[in-house]
Amino acid sequence: MIKVAINGYGTIGKRVADAVAAQPDMEIVGVSKTRPNADAFIAKSRGYPLYIADISKKSAFDKVGISVAGSVDEMLAKADIVIDATPGDVGAKNKPLYEKMGVKAIYQGGEEHEVAGFSFNSDCNYRDAFGRQFARVVSCNTTGLCRIIHAMDKAYGVEKVRAVMVRRGSDPGEIKKGPIDAVVLNPVTIPSHHGPDVQTVLPHIPIVTMAMIVPTTMMHMHAISMDLKKVATREDILTIIEKHPRMGLVRKSTGITSTAELKEYVMDLGRSRSDLWENGIFEDSVAMVGKELYLFQAIHQEADVVVENIDAIRAMIGSVKDPEVSVRMTNEALGFTAI
Amino acid sequence: MIKVAINGYGTIGKRVADAVAAQPDMEIVGVSKTRPNADAFIAKSRGYPLYIADISKKSAFDKVGISVAGSVDEMLAKADIVIDATPGDVGAKNKPLYEKMGVKAIYQGGEEHEVAGFSFNSDCNYRDAFGRQFARVVSCNTTGLCRIIHAMDKAYGVEKVRAVMVRRGSDPGEIKKGPIDAVVLNPVTIPSHHGPDVQTVLPHIPIVTMAMIVPTTMMHMHAISMDLKKVATREDILTIIEKHPRMGLVRKSTGITSTAELKEYVMDLGRSRSDLWENGIFEDSVAMVGKELYLFQAIHQEADVVVENIDAIRAMIGSVKDPEVSVRMTNEALGFTAI
Amino acid sequence: MIKVAINGYGTIGKRVADAVAAQPDMEIVGVSKTRPNADAFIAKSRGYPLYIADISKKSAFDKVGISVAGSVDEMLAKADIVIDATPGDVGAKNKPLYEKMGVKAIYQGGEEHEVAGFSFNSDCNYRDAFGRQFARVVSCNTTGLCRIIHAMDKAYGVEKVRAVMVRRGSDPGEIKKGPIDAVVLNPVTIPSHHGPDVQTVLPHIPIVTMAMIVPTTMMHMHAISMDLKKVATREDILTIIEKHPRMGLVRKSTGITSTAELKEYVMDLGRSRSDLWENGIFEDSVAMVGKELYLFQAIHQEADVVVENIDAIRAMIGSVKDPEVSVRMTNEALGFTAI
Amino acid sequence: MIKVAINGYGTIGKRVADAVAAQPDMEIVGVSKTRPNADAFIAKSRGYPLYIADISKKSAFDKVGISVAGSVDEMLAKADIVIDATPGDVGAKNKPLYEKMGVKAIYQGGEEHEVAGFSFNSDCNYRDAFGRQFARVVSCNTTGLCRIIHAMDKAYGVEKVRAVMVRRGSDPGEIKKGPIDAVVLNPVTIPSHHGPDVQTVLPHIPIVTMAMIVPTTMMHMHAISMDLKKVATREDILTIIEKHPRMGLVRKSTGITSTAELKEYVMDLGRSRSDLWENGIFEDSVAMVGKELYLFQAIHQEADVVVENIDAIRAMIGSVKDPEVSVRMTNEALGFTAI
Repeated sequence: MIKVAINGYGTIGKRVADAVAAQPDMEIVGVSKTRPNADAFIAKSRGYPLYIADISKKSAFDKVGISVAGSVDEMLAKADIVIDATPGDVGAKNKPLYEKMGVKAIYQGGEEHEVAGFSFNSDCNYRDAFGRQFARVVSCNTTGLCRIIHAMDKAYGVEKVRAVMVRRGSDPGEIKKGPIDAVVLNPVTIPSHHGPDVQTVLPHIPIVTMAMIVPTTMMHMHAISMDLKKVATREDILTIIEKHPRMGLVRKSTGITSTAELKEYVMDLGRSRSDLWENGIFEDSVAMVGKELYLFQAIHQEADVVVENIDAIRAMIGSVKDPEVSVRMTNEALGFTAI
Repeated sequence: MIKVAINGYGTIGKRVADAVAAQPDMEIVGVSKTRPNADAFIAKSRGYPLYIADISKKSAFDKVGISVAGSVDEMLAKADIVIDATPGDVGAKNKPLYEKMGVKAIYQGGEEHEVAGFSFNSDCNYRDAFGRQFARVVSCNTTGLCRIIHAMDKAYGVEKVRAVMVRRGSDPGEIKKGPIDAVVLNPVTIPSHHGPDVQTVLPHIPIVTMAMIVPTTMMHMHAISMDLKKVATREDILTIIEKHPRMGLVRKSTGITSTAELKEYVMDLGRSRSDLWENGIFEDSVAMVGKELYLFQAIHQEADVVVENIDAIRAMIGSVKDPEVSVRMTNEALGFTAI
Repeated sequence: MIKVAINGYGTIGKRVADAVAAQPDMEIVGVSKTRPNADAFIAKSRGYPLYIADISKKSAFDKVGISVAGSVDEMLAKADIVIDATPGDVGAKNKPLYEKMGVKAIYQGGEEHEVAGFSFNSDCNYRDAFGRQFARVVSCNTTGLCRIIHAMDKAYGVEKVRAVMVRRGSDPGEIKKGPIDAVVLNPVTIPSHHGPDVQTVLPHIPIVTMAMIVPTTMMHMHAISMDLKKVATREDILTIIEKHPRMGLVRKSTGITSTAELKEYVMDLGRSRSDLWENGIFEDSVAMVGKELYLFQAIHQEADVVVENIDAIRAMIGSVKDPEVSVRMTNEALGFTAI
Repeated sequence: MIKVAINGYGTIGKRVADAVAAQPDMEIVGVSKTRPNADAFIAKSRGYPLYIADISKKSAFDKVGISVAGSVDEMLAKADIVIDATPGDVGAKNKPLYEKMGVKAIYQGGEEHEVAGFSFNSDCNYRDAFGRQFARVVSCNTTGLCRIIHAMDKAYGVEKVRAVMVRRGSDPGEIKKGPIDAVVLNPVTIPSHHGPDVQTVLPHIPIVTMAMIVPTTMMHMHAISMDLKKVATREDILTIIEKHPRMGLVRKSTGITSTAELKEYVMDLGRSRSDLWENGIFEDSVAMVGKELYLFQAIHQEADVVVENIDAIRAMIGSVKDPEVSVRMTNEALGFTAI
C-alpha cells in the first residue's frame, strides 16, 4: 500500500484524498489544515488523521472538537508521497521541507513548472515520471487541452492549435471572488500563458490560447480549432473520443447544451461531488472544415486533475509501469460511468 | 410495500423517486416523462420503469435507446399512490384522471390549495391526512416557514411573524430563467402570497411575508422575525432547533456564512445530490430582542419537500400512525447526518 | 429634413430615436408602443409623438396620463422612412403594411436577410442601398465583425476568419432571461449562424464562428483570429483601427480589461446611455503570429447598430452620396469622443 | 464661491466632483488620484486639476499624457473644504493632514463615526453641522434609512424599525468582488451594524437590521417594516413620499418591479451616470397592516450620498442656513426629474 499524505485539504485536496482512499493500492496517512473550518469537520467525518502546519494552533481545533494528530512534519514522516494541494505559490515554499524529509511530492498547476522541473499528464508522459522525487500535475485547463491535443496528434498529427478558454470566475463554494456582471480578459494579451503551459507537456505543439473569465462557478468552456496534418472524418474523431478513458461525449440525445445541465447530469449519475473527471466534449459541436477540427469541451476545474494525481502517484512510485493499467485502475475505483 | 408512481420525473420527481426507493416500506412502480432527455437517461440508469403520457411519442424514446414501459394510465393502474411532480398548474388537469383510476395523489406546492383541498406538513398536520385521496405538500418556502413557526408556536406561542424571503432565480440545472443582474420584487405588493400559503397549514398564525428574487441558483434565504407570546432565551431556541429532526443548525464553528458554502458542506458530507432536506438555520444569527426572535434560515428549494412527500405517502395510506415514527423512518433511510 | 418614424420604441428603437433627433438633417415624426410602460413615459418626456398599433388600447394609455397621437398607420403616413425595431420576426409581418403605405423601411438583425433582400453595413456597402425600399441593418455581432474584417480585407486581404463570440445573456434592463450560472452553447453546432450572416454583407470572406452565452448584461466579447493575405505589423493594424471612425482602441494605459470597466469608462465620458457605438478593440490584445492576426473586441449589443441605422437612412433616401460624409455627420451629431 | 477639493477620485469622488461643478456657489479646485488609470483620463477630460498623493509617481502620469498639478498638500492649500472619498479607513489616516492644513473635511460612510465625531444627513441634522471642521456623510444604506424613518417619525412617531437589506455585491465597474452564485449573510449576526449606524444620526429610534449580499451590481433593496405611533393611511404615506425632495415613488404604471428596470428608467431620463439620488420607493409595495408600515425601497449605492455631500458642504461652511434651501439648490443644479 502506497502511503499518501495530503498537504492542503481544500477544493483539490479533499477530492484527491477521497480518490486515494478509493484505490486498492493506496491509503491516506493524513491530511493537513491551517484553520479549523467546514473542511476540517469533513476530514473528521471521513476519519482522515488531521495534521496542522502550526502546532501552536492546536487549541483552536480542540475547542471545536476536532482532534489534531500532529504536525505536518510528523505527517510527512509517515508518507511515501505527498500531494501538495496548498494554494498557488505556497507549494514552492514547501519544497525544502519535502527535500529534508526525503518524501516524494506532487505539485498542482498553480505552481510554476520549474518548482518540480517536470509537468505530468497521464496520457502524454506517464513513463517519464518513473523514479522522480517531484512532479507537477498541470492545471485543469492544461490537462483538458493535453488530452484532446495528444489524442489528435497521435492519430493525425497536429499542425496548430487555437483555443479560446472561457473560464469560471470562482469555484461554487467561494464567495469573495467575482466578477458579478462582466467578461474579464485574463490576460488581455495574446497568447495567454496557457499555450506555453501546454508546451511544458507537449513541447512540439504550436498553440495560441486566449482566455477570459465570466461570472459562473461551474466548469471552463474551451472553443478549440485544430489544424490536423491528415484528413479525418467527423466520425473518426467521435470514435477516438468515445474510446478514450478520460474523454466523454456529451450526447446530442441528452439535450445538454450548457455547463449547468452537464453538472446536473453528472450529479444525477450519482458521482462523488458531481465531479466530471473527463473532458466533456459536446458531440454535436464536433466539426471538420477541411483539415481543421472544431469542437467545444467543458472542463470541470475541480475534478479533471484529481485522476491525474492518482496516476502520477503510481508513476513516481513506479508501482505500475503501464499508463493504461493505471488509468483503468483509477477510473474503476472511482466508478466512472459513461456520461 | 406501498406502490408509488412518479408523474413528472424532473427536479422534484427524480428526488422523490430516489427517496421512495430508499424506504423499506415503499417501491417505485414507474416514473413518467414527456420527452426523451437527460432525465430519461437517468431514470434508465436507475432502473425505474419509464412511462409516457402520449404513447404516440414512443418512437422518439426508442430512437435514443430508452425503452418505454407503457402509458401513464398503465403506470397509475399499478400504483397505490402517485406523486404528481408535473410543472405548476398541470397537476390540476390530472385530477380527473386520478379520480377515474381511483389512485391517491400527492400534489406539490405549485398547485393551488383547492386542487387537493388539504395542504400537508409532517410536523403540523400529519394525522389530518389519514385516509385522504388528495393532499398537497406545500412549497419549499412554505414548508421551511411551517417547520420553524410551528416549533416556536408549540413552545412559546407565536403572536406574529414577519418573513422576508430572498429567493433563487432558477434551479442550478436551468439555463433560461434569470435575472442576471437584478433584484426583482416578486411580487411588489406586500404581503406576498407566501403568508396566506402558510395559513393553509397554520390558519391561526398572523404572518406578513415579503419576497424578492435574486440571481442565484442555490437555496432561498429567509430573514425572519417572530413575536413570541412568552419569554425565551437564545439557548432555549437553539436547543429546540437542535432536537428537531427537520431543522439543522449551521454551526458558527464551520465558518459558513452563505448558501454557497452550505451547499458545498452538504455535498462534502456525501449526501445524495448535495441535498439539504432540513431548514439550515444559522446558529450565529439566532437572536432574541425582548420577546422578538430573529434568525436567518436557508431553504434548499429542490430538497426540503422531498422528505415531506415521503411522510405524506405513509399518512395518506395510513400505514404509520405516528408522525414522529414516519419522520424517523424517512430520515434514517436517507442517511440524515448532522449538518 | 428626412421624416423618420420608429416602429417599436424599445431597447434599439429608443436609441435610434434619440440619434435621429440629434441629426441636423432628420426629424422624428413619431414612435410606437403596444403597451403603456416605462418606455412610454420616456417617449413622453422626450416629446416624441406616440402612436399605437391597436388603437382600441388608447384608453390604457389615457389612464396613466400618456396621450396617444394616433395609429401606426397614421404615423407611417407622415414618414419618409420607418425604422422597424419591433421584436425579432414581427418585422416580417409588417412588410405588407410598409408596402401598402409606400414607405421605406429599415429592419434590424433579428429579421432574416430575405425579409429586406439587402443587408447593410456603412463601411461595406453604403452605396448599394441607394434607392432601395427595404434594407436590414445586420445584428450587433455581425456589424462588429463586418467592421474589423472589412478594414483588414481592404488593407491586406483576408484569407480566413475564426471568431468565438461570448454573448451577454440579457440586456441590462431585462429581468426574465438567464442564464444565472452557466455557459450555454448557443448553438452547440459549429459553425454558428453568425458566419453566414457576415456573408450576407461580405460574401467572399471564409469565416467560421462559434457562439456561447454567459451570465452578463453588458456587451459581447469577440475572440478573433484572422489569416491575412499579406504580412502586417502590429503597429500597422493599430494605426488602421485608430483612424477608423467606428472602431475605438481601449488603451492599455486606462487599465481597462473587462466589459464592466469599459462600460463605466464610456459612462464617465458622458455619452448618452453609456453607449459604445464603436467596436471596443483592446489595444493590448492585438497580436500578429506570422500572418495571423489575433484580437479581442467588445461589442455593445444595444449601441453599435444605432449609428448604422442613421447612415442607412441617408443611403436609402439618397441624400448623402459619400459614406464617409454620412458616417462623419452621424458621429459628430452624437458627440463621439475618443475612447 | 466655495472652493472644494476631492481627495480620492473614484466611484463616489467623481460623482461628487461633477455635482460640485454643477452648483452655482461652488467650484472644484482639484481632485486627487494615486495611480494613472481610466478615472485619471476622465478627470482630464472634465478639466479638473489633478493632484497626486505621492509626487514621486508624477512620471507615471506624464508617461500616459496626464499632467499633474501638484501634490495633495498643494491641493488642500487651495481648498475651503475637502471631500474625503478615499477607500474605507484611509480617511482616518488623513485626519492629521487636514488638521495641519486647517481645512474642513467631509468623510464618507466607510469611516467610523468617531473619525469625524459627527454623522450627517440633510433631512435630520443639517443645522448641527454649522461651523464644524469635520463631518461624516453616513453610508448609502444609512442615508436611505434615515430619510424614510425621519419622515415617518416627524409625521407619526416611529416606535420600532425592522429593515432587511439585500445588498449589491460589487459596483458595476468592479471586477474582482463577488459573490457569483450565493447569498452571503454579512454579517451573520443580528442586528447588523447598520442599525447602530442609523442611531448615530437618529439616536432615539429603536431599529433592528439584518443584512445580506447578493450577486448584483445595481442598488441595494430594503425590505422595511415600521411600527408607527399613530394611525396612518396608505394614501397619507404616499403623499409624504411624493412631496419629499429626496424620495421618489416608483409608480405602478411604469411596470417597474426590479433594480434593473429602475436603473434603465433613470438612464433613459438622461440623468448623469444613470444616478438615482433619491430613495426609490415602490408605490405598489407601500402597505399598512394595523399601525405597521411595510415597503420596499431601492437605494443606489453610488448616488444617494452624493447630494448629501453637497448639502454638508454648505452646512459646514455656513453659507446656507436653511436645509430646505440647500436641498432645493442641490437638486435643481443636478436636474432632478420626477422618477
